[in-house]
Amino acid sequence: MYAIAAESLKPSEVTVLLLDIAVLLGLARVLGELARRWHMPAVLGEILAGIVLGPTLLGAFLPVEMFTWVFPPEGDTTVALDGFVLLSATLLLFVVGLEVDLSTVWRQGLAAISVSIGGIALPFAVGFIIAYGYPGLLGAGPRGANAPIAFAVFVGIALSITALPVIAKILLDLNLAKSDMGMLIISSAMLNDLVGWIGFAVVLALLPVAPGVAEAAASNGGGQVVTTIVLTIAFLVLMLTVGRWLCHRALPYVQAHWSWPGGTMAFVFVIALLCAAFTEYLGIHSIFGAFIAGVAIGDSHHLKERTRDTIHQFVMNIFAPVFFASIGLRINFIDKFDLTAVAIVGSIALFGKVAGSFLGARVSRMSYRESFATGFGMAAQGAVGIILGQLARDAGLISDELMVAIVIMALGTSMLSGPAMQRILQRKQKRTLLSFLTDKHVITEPKARDINQSIGELSRRAAEITGLEGNAIYEAVLQRERIMHTGLPHGLAVPHARLDDLPRPCLVIARNRTGIDFDAADGEPARLIALLLTPSDQPDTQIELLSLFATTFNRAAVRRQAMEIQTPTEFLAMLNQAGAESELILHDDHTLGMP
Amino acid sequence: MYAIAAESLKPSEVTVLLLDIAVLLGLARVLGELARRWHMPAVLGEILAGIVLGPTLLGAFLPVEMFTWVFPPEGDTTVALDGFVLLSATLLLFVVGLEVDLSTVWRQGLAAISVSIGGIALPFAVGFIIAYGYPGLLGAGPRGANAPIAFAVFVGIALSITALPVIAKILLDLNLAKSDMGMLIISSAMLNDLVGWIGFAVVLALLPVAPGVAEAAASNGGGQVVTTIVLTIAFLVLMLTVGRWLCHRALPYVQAHWSWPGGTMAFVFVIALLCAAFTEYLGIHSIFGAFIAGVAIGDSHHLKERTRDTIHQFVMNIFAPVFFASIGLRINFIDKFDLTAVAIVGSIALFGKVAGSFLGARVSRMSYRESFATGFGMAAQGAVGIILGQLARDAGLISDELMVAIVIMALGTSMLSGPAMQRILQRKQKRTLLSFLTDKHVITEPKARDINQSIGELSRRAAEITGLEGNAIYEAVLQRERIMHTGLPHGLAVPHARLDDLPRPCLVIARNRTGIDFDAADGEPARLIALLLTPSDQPDTQIELLSLFATTFNRAAVRRQAMEIQTPTEFLAMLNQAGAESELILHDDHTLGMP
Repeated sequence: MYAIAAESLKPSEVTVLLLDIAVLLGLARVLGELARRWHMPAVLGEILAGIVLGPTLLGAFLPVEMFTWVFPPEGDTTVALDGFVLLSATLLLFVVGLEVDLSTVWRQGLAAISVSIGGIALPFAVGFIIAYGYPGLLGAGPRGANAPIAFAVFVGIALSITALPVIAKILLDLNLAKSDMGMLIISSAMLNDLVGWIGFAVVLALLPVAPGVAEAAASNGGGQVVTTIVLTIAFLVLMLTVGRWLCHRALPYVQAHWSWPGGTMAFVFVIALLCAAFTEYLGIHSIFGAFIAGVAIGDSHHLKERTRDTIHQFVMNIFAPVFFASIGLRINFIDKFDLTAVAIVGSIALFGKVAGSFLGARVSRMSYRESFATGFGMAAQGAVGIILGQLARDAGLISDELMVAIVIMALGTSMLSGPAMQRILQRKQKRTLLSFLTDKHVITEPKARDINQSIGELSRRAAEITGLEGNAIYEAVLQRERIMHTGLPHGLAVPHARLDDLPRPCLVIARNRTGIDFDAADGEPARLIALLLTPSDQPDTQIELLSLFATTFNRAAVRRQAMEIQTPTEFLAMLNQAGAESELILHDDHTLGMP
Repeated sequence: MYAIAAESLKPSEVTVLLLDIAVLLGLARVLGELARRWHMPAVLGEILAGIVLGPTLLGAFLPVEMFTWVFPPEGDTTVALDGFVLLSATLLLFVVGLEVDLSTVWRQGLAAISVSIGGIALPFAVGFIIAYGYPGLLGAGPRGANAPIAFAVFVGIALSITALPVIAKILLDLNLAKSDMGMLIISSAMLNDLVGWIGFAVVLALLPVAPGVAEAAASNGGGQVVTTIVLTIAFLVLMLTVGRWLCHRALPYVQAHWSWPGGTMAFVFVIALLCAAFTEYLGIHSIFGAFIAGVAIGDSHHLKERTRDTIHQFVMNIFAPVFFASIGLRINFIDKFDLTAVAIVGSIALFGKVAGSFLGARVSRMSYRESFATGFGMAAQGAVGIILGQLARDAGLISDELMVAIVIMALGTSMLSGPAMQRILQRKQKRTLLSFLTDKHVITEPKARDINQSIGELSRRAAEITGLEGNAIYEAVLQRERIMHTGLPHGLAVPHARLDDLPRPCLVIARNRTGIDFDAADGEPARLIALLLTPSDQPDTQIELLSLFATTFNRAAVRRQAMEIQTPTEFLAMLNQAGAESELILHDDHTLGMP
């Protein structure tokens, strides 16, 4: 009888394991949401959580016994946590792969290839030369020092790879995802990812084996490397042809006969895990297999948008934060901070990438401005660069110092990319109704019974928020209302005014269950009344707010929910949910998720 | 610097870990879906997957080296897999807790208490007496033999606990979930679960410590037990009052400001894991904390139905199958099969539970028939009994033989419960349109251009399926059509006939993009044409099929999707998805998920 030993984790180890996952996930989500609030990639906050919890901060201040109780340096808890982190990284790359749409790449054709080649070639070349010429400068790891070419190729790839999820989110924010330029950037980034990961698989195959197993491998000699590369290419080709076709055929069957959507999720996860196990077996990392599985499955239009979104949400909010936070547990970011490495890595990755992609875009006849914006778009490294660095560090290819430099570079480029594109293209960030509102901006139980009382009540609240004179607001709004009433169909009303001394737009919404007559065309009394106050020098903002309000409550389901909620916070929660769902509806033809 | 050791899992271990999870999840889902197809609880197939993969089958036939490569008996892979399984069990019990709605229990009041007490008292008493009197007969584990009272209390609990998710699913299937009897059964089962888990927590506290750590604990003596019980009760009371209130307050904030729905999921998971870690720390099992966290959070109406459903789907389809399959990995079900234990456990659990709940129901003045059905409803043990058994075995409380007996009993009662209730109440299982259809029953590219051709085409397909004469079907349908055309509004049509020699109903659907005039009241040409053939001796079936077809395609979104699909399998997939969503809409006020 060969049964798994029962109870291999002791209760004390179980306690710490559950606590670790809870703490990592909890703090990563909190800091991730804070980053998102400040229009930065969530991954920034998630990595910061690990730095806070790890040796850099908590480890430096907490007594040693306490810190090693929470995060023991070795033992069964660590092994189990490592297993979970590994699974998280695998699923994360699977989701990144899901977002690669090969048909989009084909449609962009030469332009995508040109931008992609430019974006890869320049930073790769510079990175390769510096790493090969001065390996000590950047910090090769124990195995990297023995394999200068593998190390140099790795540095080249690490500096030229692109973060698909971060780019997709930036383009969505700037309302560019469906534009020609947006599609080009996405396609180039996909191609870039594909080339980068294949290159990384080759690097891992080229690596001399770890010191511990050197003897066993020595007998295999060079044949082993060739076998690995051949098998990797065979796997890649098979998965993207036969495997892709099989998934495409199997998905409708699974969706027709298995429980929905859980059955479909289980099916795609099994495929991802099998591919991951296979590539790990080949000697290249599991996440390469998961990535390719994602590409193969993601291409099928049978994988419905809602299922993709559920997988995406789950992996990005449950697994990915634990993975990113775990990075900080492994390295002391202060001890291992090396200014030279950070400066070199950062400048090659940023300038090389921007310049290379710019040249590629110019070759395919884009304007200067668009080419420049494309360059900054391609520069975002985000999660992908960090995963690559983490793997290379685990494989002994790079030093802790270079890993820290890569993390800082990846975060820096991701933070820079969006604002730079916005500045170059002079685009406004797409704003949502929610971004103008806090609890104070919503009145769920108004006392007003007629139009004048309602405007008065809203004006008083606006006065509290803005610090302006309540009566002045009231008069300005009433004056506008006298020209023509602002009732819209479906029980909406938008009393508004432009004010000279208002520093920023102010929106106050009253939810009135009984309804107030605002003289709408359809005769319906207004149940959702939005007071829109905008600065006189921002003529477009009024239209923007009006359109945000009207489109949000255009959906009957959202109006119905707005009548059911009890408190201002619930009102905001309802808007948050409605926003996520409408984004899903808008982008139903292809998924470009968020980091 | 106290960082977690890098790369604690070697590549070969990672390969096996990913492979194990993939194989366990894959086979568990396939067999789980097969069980579901045969109207049995999915957990049956999931446990069977483990028995197939474990020592019982695969281990008996595969060479030892190969089997131990896939499922190594010890080492880091096993530890990491154990960690994942433990996490799965924790999340599973959290979801079970989410389904406990304390307010429903209050509303049912005395009746629920009476049924619950009856259903607990009788099997508990009989189980306790037999286990205390004859511990060897049932099979006490090493620690159970030293603690006869704890062992007897555990057996009593194991025989009297109820499986909330299985019961909820059975009631949904029989269309009884919202009936008075359904609500009573659910409430009693919730109360039963709550009492059972609290009792189990006490058992764990009563247990003498494991042999290995006996010395350390000896110094604590009896004070340790009292402390544990006091802390457990304090935790329970605090979580169900203050904790519940805090979650209720925090949820709207999280839903308003975090990404949706992933942020909310992460939030509730963190709470669950923290509670689980705390109860594990107290010395009672982690899943008790997760269960109570589920009860505390699940009570909040701020946790929206769609979020619950997403959590439910994910845990039930990704984590739970791995947990259930892992049970079979640990035990050889043939070696450890003990007929005496199975017979005793099975008969006490079944007869004791049915009789006890029957008496409880009679006391609260239900009819004989309803009381009897309630008894069988309460008898389903499902997942919950199995988890309890698994924990008790891991704790050394019970022998492998008793564990096997509990698993068989739990599966047996779950399989019996639904059909027994159905027979007693003479209810029909709620059928869905999908249950009448396979690929052959759907024509997505019909050639017919007018009504006669269309009926001819559908009749020919029906003839192929049923083996009847195509012309006879055609004539019968046409004859009915001559009386009055069968077009319905919104582009639906339902040509139909009753046939003497038809053994079972047959439904063929044609999706005709151009549309065929069936003389509908709204003048729309029919785009979805269902040929309904029913046996003459089943007069109600025609109405049932007609209503299923009409209500399914009553939703504009479903009709639109039906126009977009390409193949019959995609048509079925679309119906599967639409069915899951309409169930969500119908049961939006409270969740009663499926096993």
